[in-house]
Amino acid sequence: MKCTVCKKEATIRLHRHKAKFCNEHFIEYVYRQVERAIKSFKMFRKDENLIVAVSGGKDSMACIEVLNEMGYRVTGVHINLGIHEFSEKSEEIVRKFSRETGIPIKVYYLKELFGKEIIEFKRPYAEKICSICGKLKRYYLNIIASELGGDAIVTGHNLDDACSILLGNLLFAQVQYLSKQYPVVEGEGELPRKVKPLIRLTDDELKQYVELRKIPFVQEKCPLSKGANTIYYKEVLNYLETKIRSVKAEFYFNYLKKLRPYFLNEEETEVKYCRVCGYKTSSRSGICYVCSIKNELEGSDDKGPY
Amino acid sequence: MKCTVCKKEATIRLHRHKAKFCNEHFIEYVYRQVERAIKSFKMFRKDENLIVAVSGGKDSMACIEVLNEMGYRVTGVHINLGIHEFSEKSEEIVRKFSRETGIPIKVYYLKELFGKEIIEFKRPYAEKICSICGKLKRYYLNIIASELGGDAIVTGHNLDDACSILLGNLLFAQVQYLSKQYPVVEGEGELPRKVKPLIRLTDDELKQYVELRKIPFVQEKCPLSKGANTIYYKEVLNYLETKIRSVKAEFYFNYLKKLRPYFLNEEETEVKYCRVCGYKTSSRSGICYVCSIKNELEGSDDKGPY
Repeated sequence: MKCTVCKKEATIRLHRHKAKFCNEHFIEYVYRQVERAIKSFKMFRKDENLIVAVSGGKDSMACIEVLNEMGYRVTGVHINLGIHEFSEKSEEIVRKFSRETGIPIKVYYLKELFGKEIIEFKRPYAEKICSICGKLKRYYLNIIASELGGDAIVTGHNLDDACSILLGNLLFAQVQYLSKQYPVVEGEGELPRKVKPLIRLTDDELKQYVELRKIPFVQEKCPLSKGANTIYYKEVLNYLETKIRSVKAEFYFNYLKKLRPYFLNEEETEVKYCRVCGYKTSSRSGICYVCSIKNELEGSDDKGPY
Repeated sequence: MKCTVCKKEATIRLHRHKAKFCNEHFIEYVYRQVERAIKSFKMFRKDENLIVAVSGGKDSMACIEVLNEMGYRVTGVHINLGIHEFSEKSEEIVRKFSRETGIPIKVYYLKELFGKEIIEFKRPYAEKICSICGKLKRYYLNIIASELGGDAIVTGHNLDDACSILLGNLLFAQVQYLSKQYPVVEGEGELPRKVKPLIRLTDDELKQYVELRKIPFVQEKCPLSKGANTIYYKEVLNYLETKIRSVKAEFYFNYLKKLRPYFLNEEETEVKYCRVCGYKTSSRSGICYVCSIKNELEGSDDKGPY
């Protein structure tokens, strides 16, 4: 097996591109895909402050490493969510990586930010914990990134993530989310825009990248995410990819180009701000999700289901 | 296990409805779903002439049997496509069923209609034979149904068929087909409308129905359909259904209600008619697909790849 670029011995085969790469040219391929995503979606410039959300998983670790290698100004933000050993291990890996590489990563605790850890949520919240956790992370990332003077919040979402979210939204006709399926979401007011520079790379490619570059990451999946529908969506998309070459990239990028425009008018025009915290909200009550969940939980002395 | 309706011993469990049925109430359930589809999509009335496309597979056999049992005026049309033993067997089963039940089914031969059997197509046509076969069947069904004075052409497409076609069109952003994903497609000029009364029933439910009613059908899949993408789409939708209850019905009916309206303006407004045969066509050349493929094949003395 010969490298498509230099004809030396190849170590990695990418079926979807009908390409084979040696280590050196695979890394070059990864940088090229990231650069292409940044440029084609006008994500950010070299002189901007990028706040990279770093969970400790392979994608966010690859994301901050790649952007740092490519010369972008990155600051990592890790939020310890309080999910037993999983969160402890994540924080440890992130701190060690920051120490060893010199890439700045700031660590925050959900307990301090929100007053409660994820593990403390009990019914009926525990049933939709992935959704709540996502909302809390987005909310506090917004606040932290604003405080740090970030121009953009960068997340490590890859092609598989984007496809599985899109599939879920199409399967259940979630019109309100369909226009937001884009690698750049513009910020409003004091909020920085959100960008996904790994959008052209697959789960598998990123796995190979972190291994090759010996980037440490949390191998375990979040113990609370078991049974989340996106896991099934990823499974079926992976299966389809084995049968129909490049179906994931076709799906996502065709969607962006040909279908998403139909849903653009569905974006909310009226911007509202939470009466409690002042942040943007689409809630009819005028109180954002995080503040209203805080209200609901206040006074309850639950011990959590886990 | 007790029947949800009569509390007698149940024989069939429908997870997606959280229901169990005895034989009698399962049959009633099937009729109810068909009736509901006919009524809610305004498919046809009792005094109309229905031309039912009968391939010999379980769905089309169930379709004509159910409609006949429910008192609709049905005439079956079977086109022998010329796919070796598969077509011979299909024709035999259809003829026998017609003889034994008294339901009229007329048999046609693609060789006589088009001048060639499916098996005779060679490269490059053989590679997209499922698509060509579908187009030929629709074309000749239109002609035959018009000649027979049909008010509607009825096909046995079920929920799984509809979902898998829809999934394929979404995966590859086939905008031109997305508005046509509907259980009723109005006819134009002399062409009858096309309707799918089994749209509320799944593959599995129809399998159980034909077994219960001892309706004969061709068990084999078409030998040429191997590797068709719709097979993979059905596989993944079936897998998702095991994980997310009722996901297929949610997908299809939510699509009809919430997403399809966005694509309605995409329907062609200019109706053109083929310069050769006079039938409706969307082709830019002014010659319909069937006539142009006929032209292309004429004079070629190919023997076919099979």
